[in-house]
Amino acid sequence: MRLEPEKLAEIEALRAHQQPTRRATVPALEEILGLPLPVLDHGFVRVIDYMGDDAAIVQAARVSYGKGTKKPSSDRALIRYLMRHRHTSPFEMCEIKFHIKLPIFVARQWIRHRTANVNEYSARYSILDREFYLPDREFLQLFRIERKGPGPEQARLFDLPEPEVQATAAQSTTNKQGREGTLAAEVAAEVIRRMKRAAETDFTLYERLLGEGGEGVEGYGIARELARLVLPLSTYTQWYWKIDLHNLLHFLELRADPHAQAEIRAYAQVILDVVRRWVPLAYEAFEDYRRKAFTLSGPAREAVRRALRGEAVDPEALGLSRREWEELRAALPELATAERAPPRSQEP
Amino acid sequence: MRLEPEKLAEIEALRAHQQPTRRATVPALEEILGLPLPVLDHGFVRVIDYMGDDAAIVQAARVSYGKGTKKPSSDRALIRYLMRHRHTSPFEMCEIKFHIKLPIFVARQWIRHRTANVNEYSARYSILDREFYLPDREFLQLFRIERKGPGPEQARLFDLPEPEVQATAAQSTTNKQGREGTLAAEVAAEVIRRMKRAAETDFTLYERLLGEGGEGVEGYGIARELARLVLPLSTYTQWYWKIDLHNLLHFLELRADPHAQAEIRAYAQVILDVVRRWVPLAYEAFEDYRRKAFTLSGPAREAVRRALRGEAVDPEALGLSRREWEELRAALPELATAERAPPRSQEP
Amino acid sequence: MRLEPEKLAEIEALRAHQQPTRRATVPALEEILGLPLPVLDHGFVRVIDYMGDDAAIVQAARVSYGKGTKKPSSDRALIRYLMRHRHTSPFEMCEIKFHIKLPIFVARQWIRHRTANVNEYSARYSILDREFYLPDREFLQLFRIERKGPGPEQARLFDLPEPEVQATAAQSTTNKQGREGTLAAEVAAEVIRRMKRAAETDFTLYERLLGEGGEGVEGYGIARELARLVLPLSTYTQWYWKIDLHNLLHFLELRADPHAQAEIRAYAQVILDVVRRWVPLAYEAFEDYRRKAFTLSGPAREAVRRALRGEAVDPEALGLSRREWEELRAALPELATAERAPPRSQEP
Amino acid sequence: MRLEPEKLAEIEALRAHQQPTRRATVPALEEILGLPLPVLDHGFVRVIDYMGDDAAIVQAARVSYGKGTKKPSSDRALIRYLMRHRHTSPFEMCEIKFHIKLPIFVARQWIRHRTANVNEYSARYSILDREFYLPDREFLQLFRIERKGPGPEQARLFDLPEPEVQATAAQSTTNKQGREGTLAAEVAAEVIRRMKRAAETDFTLYERLLGEGGEGVEGYGIARELARLVLPLSTYTQWYWKIDLHNLLHFLELRADPHAQAEIRAYAQVILDVVRRWVPLAYEAFEDYRRKAFTLSGPAREAVRRALRGEAVDPEALGLSRREWEELRAALPELATAERAPPRSQEP
Repeated sequence: MRLEPEKLAEIEALRAHQQPTRRATVPALEEILGLPLPVLDHGFVRVIDYMGDDAAIVQAARVSYGKGTKKPSSDRALIRYLMRHRHTSPFEMCEIKFHIKLPIFVARQWIRHRTANVNEYSARYSILDREFYLPDREFLQLFRIERKGPGPEQARLFDLPEPEVQATAAQSTTNKQGREGTLAAEVAAEVIRRMKRAAETDFTLYERLLGEGGEGVEGYGIARELARLVLPLSTYTQWYWKIDLHNLLHFLELRADPHAQAEIRAYAQVILDVVRRWVPLAYEAFEDYRRKAFTLSGPAREAVRRALRGEAVDPEALGLSRREWEELRAALPELATAERAPPRSQEP
Repeated sequence: MRLEPEKLAEIEALRAHQQPTRRATVPALEEILGLPLPVLDHGFVRVIDYMGDDAAIVQAARVSYGKGTKKPSSDRALIRYLMRHRHTSPFEMCEIKFHIKLPIFVARQWIRHRTANVNEYSARYSILDREFYLPDREFLQLFRIERKGPGPEQARLFDLPEPEVQATAAQSTTNKQGREGTLAAEVAAEVIRRMKRAAETDFTLYERLLGEGGEGVEGYGIARELARLVLPLSTYTQWYWKIDLHNLLHFLELRADPHAQAEIRAYAQVILDVVRRWVPLAYEAFEDYRRKAFTLSGPAREAVRRALRGEAVDPEALGLSRREWEELRAALPELATAERAPPRSQEP
Repeated sequence: MRLEPEKLAEIEALRAHQQPTRRATVPALEEILGLPLPVLDHGFVRVIDYMGDDAAIVQAARVSYGKGTKKPSSDRALIRYLMRHRHTSPFEMCEIKFHIKLPIFVARQWIRHRTANVNEYSARYSILDREFYLPDREFLQLFRIERKGPGPEQARLFDLPEPEVQATAAQSTTNKQGREGTLAAEVAAEVIRRMKRAAETDFTLYERLLGEGGEGVEGYGIARELARLVLPLSTYTQWYWKIDLHNLLHFLELRADPHAQAEIRAYAQVILDVVRRWVPLAYEAFEDYRRKAFTLSGPAREAVRRALRGEAVDPEALGLSRREWEELRAALPELATAERAPPRSQEP
Repeated sequence: MRLEPEKLAEIEALRAHQQPTRRATVPALEEILGLPLPVLDHGFVRVIDYMGDDAAIVQAARVSYGKGTKKPSSDRALIRYLMRHRHTSPFEMCEIKFHIKLPIFVARQWIRHRTANVNEYSARYSILDREFYLPDREFLQLFRIERKGPGPEQARLFDLPEPEVQATAAQSTTNKQGREGTLAAEVAAEVIRRMKRAAETDFTLYERLLGEGGEGVEGYGIARELARLVLPLSTYTQWYWKIDLHNLLHFLELRADPHAQAEIRAYAQVILDVVRRWVPLAYEAFEDYRRKAFTLSGPAREAVRRALRGEAVDPEALGLSRREWEELRAALPELATAERAPPRSQEP
């Protein structure tokens, strides 16, 4: 990420200005206020403003006249209690505002979180900068192997064609494995070259559509709102985004999860660090009761109880699907030894 | 409104603490931060925190890197443009948090505004103070005459029984008018005495239901969540309430309106003053484009056009109901002269 | 619950009218459409309308052109997959509308669920019926013993005075237990008599405040919006309430939970039965993945893993509070045997 | 718009199935239920389901036991009253669900309306069809002349560079006007050819990135979620979209407005027709009180009052900007004659 000098100057001017306030203030967050925290190749996350801190959660939960805090240990205990029992309203009493630069395909996932305020840079009235996202090479290789489409379970459930690649991937494990590794680097480089060339061609057309033309210069003078539709989904946009802490944590729970697309996860990771600076007690409770937590369904609970009693567990008989059982074993690896060996049909 | 000394001490401790911040700060709002602004007999409004100022609206509308403002005159023009064209998202970028003490029947109207965050004092776990709202005398007299129930139009539309009082009120305009005035004061005093006695009886029962009893002392040891249900709707509750500026203005448009019940209007008036301190440019635009504005329906527009052409206007022929025409004439009193005299049926 | 003959006639007229439709239709729900399902002493829940069924969830998840379903078994699997992975948007594609009659103190808890549409009967314009809620005797006895206020943990965390009753309750376990049982029935009856008398007194005042008075009849002609504030929180109100299935399940998860107040839980139970009729597959998934589920926090997961390995578990060392450990043992009773005996300090 | 035979068959199967229901039913809407109503070159709007009708608005407003309607004329009057006084909650009691196919750049504007439920076709797991939007020729010509970017007022307020085309446009009015007309058609054709070629190139790359490759066939086996980012913003997507009537009318007020981009307006027009079929009384009230309405600001009201009194109006002295005055004159053309002639400075 590189910013033009005049934008950097604007940011510096903003940061240089300090004023006294009676409001809850978080020095660790003030430190980075306004600074662009880089994400992906051209994106960033900037904290523009915030309201509240850990003590403000406590203050609201107690409907206090003053700060609401008693001693740090009891504040921590209350915040953990609220997080554990999903008493969400005190967390809604903190608010944060970001300026974010992100590719359009990421923005499209992001905007699905409706409980937030958004002001996006308008490509109807403004001209977009020539900036687009390109995945880096290692990243692309990773994806080539792991995530080409829906898993077989999803394909079946959602009625999607199962990706043929599954078969191919199986093949490659046998004889092409070695070559695949080295080949992949070249292929990745080639893919990135092609993506880059395509985006540049699109942007050149965009600029021509917008251009006025003139002697020897091609230009069509098309409206901005129409010219933009030749731009790729990798084009960067930017917006102001404001959200309360409860809804932000929900966003992070979904978007910092390994199932989220890697690009939006990169943003979620940066925002997780911001949250840790801002409300360290709420952050710690969020880690313990959400991010590291695992929910046992009714049948899964039954499976765990049997294993604790030393009994063998037959996942299918309990109504657990193959994938549910795998997820449960990933969360509690000790369960593996409890699994009942499937009956061998060839036995006498 | 009277606060216990320990609550005042908590508020003072909160206000005494100042810290430097890089965030947008509004000195005129800092002045009253945390102070209880009295409303009704025991209620208050306290500003606990805020995010943003007039410049923050501009900053979001321009998706700026810095403060976003250029010169005051152009900021004002942009804010007015946004308000006029109902570009609401930049106003959502400001947020404010209140601590409010209010009677339950007011809280029930208030909570209908769903786009806000609320933390209410819990009467399941806590014991409510012996505080209830009593209307004052002049106020009650006013209401005795003016607003006893639905207007005849509402009664007809919603299928409600028309209040008999309408007839009585008509009577009183003729012969009892004078006496009514003096009588009303006594009646109002009597009504307030009765309301007070009833509320005190209810609170006494509440305390007995909660009490443990003991030697010679009556007490039933009932759960708080059940004991409370003998309390009247005039009982005071309190909550933390957080909302963005756009939704706050919408709340104020409805609740500071003469059609709103006087008690919630009293809160809206105090909050209007807070908004004027906080975002004076947005406040001015709100006054011009919302509070002083009047919306001409299609038929009303036609009526105004005819009047401007010097033609006579027949409201009924244009599809305007009697009440619509009255409201239009109240907004544009000059229309009265344009109204076509109703045809006199006795003419030859 | 008893309805006036003209209301029953209106309901019958509504139910008698059938029309053909191309929309998703659920015969089991049509059966009870419009019928008042009784709750508490005067309350009810009536299903007024609904949109969608189990197949509509599948249809939206697959963004189908037709019904979207393939065969029942795969629909069930997809719905369970969506519920398990908290893919909430397909459940939002079903909607239901209720007419509900409920006491005001229940309505105040209910309205905290903001993602719903509400139309409440107006006590500003209409006169409320003389109907109020009285808990029944067994119920009150139960509460006298179990839930007099916050638990000791809540009192400590929220900075509330611990209810004295805790001490009393401890006493009663020793010597007064027997008497308590029989006494309680009398006390409960006495409490209900008092609540009833108080509510009747309040309603009588309400009617006088509203009344016009006349020869020998007391009456003050006060506005409806003001007269109502002498009414108790047990007064019945009614509203139309419309919500999507995802948000309804969230409501039920919280309000059918044993921690919810018994009165709102009574409504949640009736609505659970409605949901089972309406979307049986979603209901079953909701039971397995929400209602019977238990979430293991990070530390709790560690405790379970140790127990599965046959190791002793020291909850405190893992950072589990006493109450967390109790809840965990309640969910997985087999853990009790794994708990490390607390070190005996008197040991040599 | 052309649909594959199997999709048409699915739609036919859906439509063929009718069942009796006790719910509010609208025959005029049943007629088109499930049918794809074409929009733009490949898009459509399909009504999938609906809840409520005009009578349901009345029923909720009256919190009725039965249908709630009395006679058609009073229902109409109540609906108009509710619309006029912005009593929005009864309109929220109707709900509608659509299946919509639309270009991504339109979807990005659409999704800004947050009070709706959405299920979008996933390009992470599925492969997008080779379908993209191309504006038609007349349309493009229109835009070339009229809307190349922000107006001068917007440019100034939002701190945007004023589009140079403004000057050019001025030029063309003098000497190139005639040629411009004929030239424009050729230019438009050329622009569309270029847009088409670019989109096809992008789609070909997309397919190669996804492809497995093989003997003589290029293919890179890239993950779907990454391959898609080379696609243009003109690519078609589709979603299920569900919204209540109040929020739908708000969407239509903004998106059927001449200031909206023509492409989203095309969808809004089709949906307006759907609303007219569904709730004709609410539609009529919406036309009169929203679409044909004009809001007079405080200063504008003063201007109208002066004109009605026959006085000259000086917009600037009243605080009306040039553009506000123009909009006011467009709404009330008779005002033009009232405008005070600007003082001529060259006068003696």
